[in-house]
Parts: sequence; C-alpha cells; structure tokens
Amino acid sequence: MEKREQLYEGKAKKVFATDDPTLVLVSYKDDATAFNGLKKGTIEGKGAINNRVTNYLMQLLEKNGVPTHFVQELSARETLVKKVAIVPLEVIVRNVAAGSLAKRLGLAEGTVLSRTVLEYCYKDDALGDPMVNDDHIAAMGWATEAEMATIRAYALTVNRVLGETLRDLNIELIDFKLEFGRLADGTIVLADEISPDTCRFWDTVTREKLDKDRFRRDLGGVEDAYHEIMKRLMGE
Amino acid sequence: MEKREQLYEGKAKKVFATDDPTLVLVSYKDDATAFNGLKKGTIEGKGAINNRVTNYLMQLLEKNGVPTHFVQELSARETLVKKVAIVPLEVIVRNVAAGSLAKRLGLAEGTVLSRTVLEYCYKDDALGDPMVNDDHIAAMGWATEAEMATIRAYALTVNRVLGETLRDLNIELIDFKLEFGRLADGTIVLADEISPDTCRFWDTVTREKLDKDRFRRDLGGVEDAYHEIMKRLMGE
Repeated sequence: MEKREQLYEGKAKKVFATDDPTLVLVSYKDDATAFNGLKKGTIEGKGAINNRVTNYLMQLLEKNGVPTHFVQELSARETLVKKVAIVPLEVIVRNVAAGSLAKRLGLAEGTVLSRTVLEYCYKDDALGDPMVNDDHIAAMGWATEAEMATIRAYALTVNRVLGETLRDLNIELIDFKLEFGRLADGTIVLADEISPDTCRFWDTVTREKLDKDRFRRDLGGVEDAYHEIMKRLMGE
Repeated sequence: MEKREQLYEGKAKKVFATDDPTLVLVSYKDDATAFNGLKKGTIEGKGAINNRVTNYLMQLLEKNGVPTHFVQELSARETLVKKVAIVPLEVIVRNVAAGSLAKRLGLAEGTVLSRTVLEYCYKDDALGDPMVNDDHIAAMGWATEAEMATIRAYALTVNRVLGETLRDLNIELIDFKLEFGRLADGTIVLADEISPDTCRFWDTVTREKLDKDRFRRDLGGVEDAYHEIMKRLMGE
C-alpha cells in the first residue's frame, strides 16, 4: 500500500489517498480545537492515543455487529480505512446531561437522563453545526429515512457496547459524537474516530473528567487524562 | 356562564376562570411582542381579528378530524374554550424556508422544502424556547411517545386542511406554530390560536407578507395585513 497525495486536512486529522481507490490513510494530529475552532492548542501525544484508542474500539464494535471503516493500523498515528462519502451529520448520543445539552435545557451537568437521547447536528462550520431533526435531514436529502434508521440503530448499539466496556473500567460514558459514511455500494459504516476528543468520559468513582473537556475548560492534566483512558482500555 | 378571576396573562392573551371548572375564557389583546419579548408594540384591532380568525379555523379543523379546545365565541375578543394542561412545546410546521429555519440552515427565505418539516421547541422563555427532538421530549417527560404520534398526525392534518383552504384564497401557508393541550381525561386537543400572529401567510401572486413579520421587520401595513387575512377567510 502506497501513501499518495493529501486529500483533506481537518482540525484533528489528515487524510491521504492510497494506490487503492477504495482505501484512504488517516493520520492523527496533536492539534486540538474547541468551540468551533475559536480555541486552539496542542495536546502532546494526542494523535497517537486517539489513533490507537479509536482502532481498538472500532474493532470491538465490528465484533458486536457495527460495521466500521477500519482496515488496518499502519503506525503510531496512521491507519488505513475504507474510503467513504461522509453523511454530513454529527450523531450525538447522550446518557447524562453535559455540555451544550445541559446549557440548552437548563439542566445541572451530571443529571442522568431518564433515557438515551440522540441528537443530530448538520456538519457546517459556517452555520455553527446547527441541531437538526429527522424531518430536516429528509427534506434536505442529507440521508434517507432508511439510512437514518440504520444510523440510529448502530448509534444505540455503540452506546450499549462502549457503555458496558467502560463501566468495567470505572469509566462512565456521559455522551459521545459519531460520524457515519457510505461505501461505494451505499453501505452505511461507522467512520471518523471514537476517542477522548469525541466522548465525555468521567471516572465512575471520583467523577473526574478524562476527556477533551479538560482542554476546553482549562482544567489541566489534559495529556494525563488521554493516557489514562488508553491505559484503562488497552492496559498500557 | 360567569367570568371569574384571571388565571394567566400571556403576551397576546389573558385567560380567566369561569363557573365551570372544565372551561376557561380567553381574551385576546392588541399587544404584540417579537424576538422573545425584546420588541414590543400594539397592533390596533389585532385581538378581535385573531379571536375571530382562530375560532373560524378551529371549527374548520374540528370538521376535518382535529379535536380542538374551542367551545363558543362570546364577544369580539372573548372565547370560551375547554380547560387544558398545555403540552409545553411549540409545534412548528414548515412548508417553505423562512425565519429561524432559513437562518439556521443558510437557506434563502422562500426556498420550498422538498417535504413538510416539523420542529418542536420547548416552551421556556428563560431558555429562549430551545429546539428539541422526540428523544428530549420523551427523556424529559414533556409528552409520551403516543402523545407525540397523535400531535404529529394532527399537525400534518392541520397543514393539509389550512394549506388547501388558504390556497383557494391566494394565500400560501409558509409555516405556522401550534400548541396542544390535554383535557382532564388525557385527550390531546389543539389549543392556543391560529392567526397572523402564529402563521406566515404570503400572497400567492404578489409574495407580500400578510402576517406578524410585518411587525417583526417594520414593514408597515401591519393592521391592513391582519384585516386582509380575515377578509379573505371570512368575507368581511
């Protein structure tokens, strides 16, 4: 497999073409941003941790019935994945009120929701990733109703599998963001990453935050939190 | 029927108790507000027009299978309605992009949506009536899933019946806001009002706005627009 030209550079990752038109190479960066790019910084070693944690969790999810874009880890920061056309939605799964939900509904952060809540945000930085619902998605043609049923079912499976895995490691899965893509034949697969950048993880006992909120809110110990998640998940 | 103490005063209406505990009296005001109360004013004669237009449309909807709170028009501004516990949601039905939807999704105002879009906003002035979805509604206990299925079906029926009626009068139904309530036995009925305060009406030929946007946006001719809607609907 040969690495070719860069196709895209996002806030936390670069994507490169390969000599196989169905595969691309993802390279994780240490760059961190928050608040739609208003806050910028670096989290030392983040790229390598997120690469390894994402790949570990993607393989766990594949075993549990969620198809993903994962193909092969190539190096500390680089992974080969299936090329997808991304569904332009952030799929947010919430078990406990935190962040924007706590603010929007006036709930104390940490309030346990009586059931899991899914939210969809249209991926558009210029519009500030506005929250949308199934009607907006269908009317705008961002995904079909059948695709959204699949995405919802996968998102709930991810929540169940990750939640159970993390609970055994004394980590509470507060909320997380997923992205999905379509393969050339239209199959929906889980894409993007699953890491402390895209999840809220709280220590079950101490309630300490072990995720990107440490960066967003200047809580210190950012690198340690990312390492702690990798260590609990992968024992290293 | 005897009018008793005032139970509530909202931005556009007052509600009074009656000697029948299952009925309340609604009195429409000429007061107008916009932008969550930031803009205030008076629209001369609005209360009487909204009272008559609402009652006319509620009776039309009853005939078409949508139960409503309407009982009897008492005077120019006053109507007897069934007492309900309001479902704390604004149900917004959109056929054409305008207002907050146009802004949120970056659509030109007047863009015809490829299908009808329903939105729900949690009625809470302090939170700015945030948009919510079916998961939030179920998790917060604002309505059951069965109630939301009923509300959605009624809202789509209202859209069809009003849309057809207005089209014959050269009025395009751009979008509108509904509220629903529960009778003592739990029955869901359409409540609140249906008027130029709560709908966007555009003249089909001239595209002129015949609704509260004339007040919101200082377009002038506010009273004339309200009168024009009553005249086209009720011939007077």
